[in-house]
Amino acid sequence: MIIIGEKINGAIPKTAAAIEARDEAYIRKLAVAQEQAGADYLDVCAGTAPDKEEEALRWLLGIVQDVSELPICLDSPDPHMIVNTMDAVKHPGILNSISAEGEKCDVLLPVLEKHPEWSVMALCSGNAGVSETAEQKIAVAQGLMDQVKARGIAEDRVFIDPLVLALSAIGNSSIEFCRAIEMIHGAWPGVHVAAAVSNISYGTPARSLLNSRFLTIALEHGLDAGIVDPTNRDIIGSMYATDALMGRDRHSRKYNNAFRKGLIGPVEK
Amino acid sequence: MIIIGEKINGAIPKTAAAIEARDEAYIRKLAVAQEQAGADYLDVCAGTAPDKEEEALRWLLGIVQDVSELPICLDSPDPHMIVNTMDAVKHPGILNSISAEGEKCDVLLPVLEKHPEWSVMALCSGNAGVSETAEQKIAVAQGLMDQVKARGIAEDRVFIDPLVLALSAIGNSSIEFCRAIEMIHGAWPGVHVAAAVSNISYGTPARSLLNSRFLTIALEHGLDAGIVDPTNRDIIGSMYATDALMGRDRHSRKYNNAFRKGLIGPVEK
Repeated sequence: MIIIGEKINGAIPKTAAAIEARDEAYIRKLAVAQEQAGADYLDVCAGTAPDKEEEALRWLLGIVQDVSELPICLDSPDPHMIVNTMDAVKHPGILNSISAEGEKCDVLLPVLEKHPEWSVMALCSGNAGVSETAEQKIAVAQGLMDQVKARGIAEDRVFIDPLVLALSAIGNSSIEFCRAIEMIHGAWPGVHVAAAVSNISYGTPARSLLNSRFLTIALEHGLDAGIVDPTNRDIIGSMYATDALMGRDRHSRKYNNAFRKGLIGPVEK
Repeated sequence: MIIIGEKINGAIPKTAAAIEARDEAYIRKLAVAQEQAGADYLDVCAGTAPDKEEEALRWLLGIVQDVSELPICLDSPDPHMIVNTMDAVKHPGILNSISAEGEKCDVLLPVLEKHPEWSVMALCSGNAGVSETAEQKIAVAQGLMDQVKARGIAEDRVFIDPLVLALSAIGNSSIEFCRAIEMIHGAWPGVHVAAAVSNISYGTPARSLLNSRFLTIALEHGLDAGIVDPTNRDIIGSMYATDALMGRDRHSRKYNNAFRKGLIGPVEK
């Protein structure tokens, strides 16, 4: 699984406070910890008010890239903000994100066409909101992929996020999500399918338990990228264990190595 | 999932020591703890030398049934021992087990025919050893089910255990096991499919991590009975989380109740 570290995001209260206080040490620690835990990309999202976003985003990118050479997943609800701050990214990267909403595709797809070093996150949501059933998710993905293909952008530069809905609100959320993974891989064999895993557990107790078992099920259905907290042992444990169980880790070598490095398994008391 | 509590088994060193020392308090504690954690059956296996087995088994049954009214999964490698000790069981129960090995079927199937209150565990192993591929497992199951059906024993009295092999020895153990679950349910819709889950992790570190994610995958493929340690929070957490994720727990009520009862989720430090 491709791990996109989710922790440098102003939507997380502690990170928001650090951004507000311009707490460099805290942000640096998040970047280093996620890289050490095995992140492949670092998501960077300021999550501040629009008039303060560019300054906050540039500040974050400066600090993160000072301590990590991981490619950046450049994350903003405003596609213009993404375009405006791309110059501050040393190692592209995933533009996060397009969807069928507003002008996102019109703004970002031409940029992707010109910059083959960038990939893109494509969310299965439109102006009418998020899609619930696998069929609705695929319909949105189809519209996005038609535009992607029309511009000659290769499938393997696209991460489709079918959108994980809270199980507490939508009882068949996991079932529909997993059906969507399989349908997406069937329709576009080259694309990655990504999930913001922890969304499954909004409003449910023991969130890490539910998140980690959802990750196992989603991986089994073909998920190959996760926007997750790689420092969460339940999550990263699910990843290594599931890969080993699914025959994707010969002789469980990666699992055993992760255990020896102290990344998975029970914590000594 | 039907939970068969595995802890009262002389194959477990601490339980063996308690049996040897006739430590009533220890055995009582195992029975009560497993029932409180949600066990549906208690497996009872003496695991001692043949000449001491009957006495040990009767001693165990006496203590266990003194504190618990759960039905007993009467477990011995010797089918005659099972027949000889059935009279000591107040609440049948599963005879554990038949297989294609030796005289097990010849001894136990007539007993099952006469005693409709008992169910039976049927292992996918024969004189040639355990079966590795799903096709081998099904071939053994077919032979057993032919005999079961010939005696008019109903499918829902049979728990087929396709046999979980250690992932450290057989790299596709989980994949073949899960294929077997689906094939068994396809062939005999009324039977239960059971797994001794922790066998997956022999020789692998962080066993509880691997066991619990294996349980999630197996449940998703249709496993409906587990010979497990119900006091293990990783295992029981997987059961509740997976049921909720698979839409088998409306409004996550059982999951939420298990959390409130303190059965799942992080332990307060």
